[in-house]
Amino acid sequence: MKIGIVGGTGGIGEGMALRLSLTHEVFVGSRTADKAVACCDACLRRLERGTPCTLRGVSNQEAVDNGDIVILAIPYGHLVTTLTSLTGFEGKIVISPVNPIKKEDHFSFDPPPEGSAAMLAERLLPADARVVAAFNNIAANRWKMLDEDLDYSVAVCGDDPDAKHLVMKFIDSISHLKALDAGPLASASMVESITPLLLNIARYNGMKDVGVRFG
Amino acid sequence: MKIGIVGGTGGIGEGMALRLSLTHEVFVGSRTADKAVACCDACLRRLERGTPCTLRGVSNQEAVDNGDIVILAIPYGHLVTTLTSLTGFEGKIVISPVNPIKKEDHFSFDPPPEGSAAMLAERLLPADARVVAAFNNIAANRWKMLDEDLDYSVAVCGDDPDAKHLVMKFIDSISHLKALDAGPLASASMVESITPLLLNIARYNGMKDVGVRFG
Repeated sequence: MKIGIVGGTGGIGEGMALRLSLTHEVFVGSRTADKAVACCDACLRRLERGTPCTLRGVSNQEAVDNGDIVILAIPYGHLVTTLTSLTGFEGKIVISPVNPIKKEDHFSFDPPPEGSAAMLAERLLPADARVVAAFNNIAANRWKMLDEDLDYSVAVCGDDPDAKHLVMKFIDSISHLKALDAGPLASASMVESITPLLLNIARYNGMKDVGVRFG
Repeated sequence: MKIGIVGGTGGIGEGMALRLSLTHEVFVGSRTADKAVACCDACLRRLERGTPCTLRGVSNQEAVDNGDIVILAIPYGHLVTTLTSLTGFEGKIVISPVNPIKKEDHFSFDPPPEGSAAMLAERLLPADARVVAAFNNIAANRWKMLDEDLDYSVAVCGDDPDAKHLVMKFIDSISHLKALDAGPLASASMVESITPLLLNIARYNGMKDVGVRFG
């Protein structure tokens, strides 16, 4: 399966690219394709452990065009400008790991009028793009630690059953991640709002890169 | 430590009373004290295993009056009427495990204008009551299964450092629960909204009494 990562050279995108390159063909998108190529060169060096690597540095548009699944690995603040500058999402499966977070003296959930970043993405994308919220609660650093298992639950929200099923299979193929159906896309707000909570828990309890397991 | 449970004969209250009676002196409150006495008799029979039991069935008002810590084990829909019908919360530590949940085709978080049930409770209670949100994400059935450990994280939100510290110690004294400081009471919305998500996850994945661990 071909994975396109929009924002693949950012914090969470780079870690995802590194981790997914072990098992999938990954198109690492960036606003400037040059940056993505440089990132991929760096990734390749870090992956020099005999493991086949299939990272390809491209522009964000090429990441969309080439991905069977497109992951929006971008900060919430860039969501509108990025999505309105790209085309070709028709029929694509689009994963939103985006979390609208406000930082004052503590972190809080700060959703748009649509209720969640995932619902905002759905409004901005073509009607037949199949938006799925997933990977919202995994810290960027955990993606990068290739020597450690990713042993978390991944709540998955979406309205297209086929797209959700395929994304859940994709998730279950990554390290020890465990996909859980969390209902329709309208439920994504409850998943996204866990992330500022995790940031608070890390901060107030001297923990790092806190994740979540449901069971 | 004396624990008063307002609504101690309801689903979550009964389980809490059973579990806490193993280690604490518990005042099990009910709208009618007779019902609480009956509940406690039943509890005592279920606890006939040589374990000392300290459950006492009382009225909700007596649960407030006697508790060093008062737990509001009531459904969200009863929160306003219950709190406005009781007195004597001055200076008390008040734990809110209450979650405002709406059930349509799926469960969703449905907070009051204050942002969370905990913030609503704080508005309704005297200014010197020390409200702490905790136990929001533990299913009633898990409290009741005395033969199984309670092995979950408990996110704790509150604005009074001493009250929060004492509640966290109390939580850590219960089975294998692990208290985590989740910041000020204003953050309780992010904890409460996990519960409808857990209900959806249970429903859509054929699971039961789903809880949460942060780490």
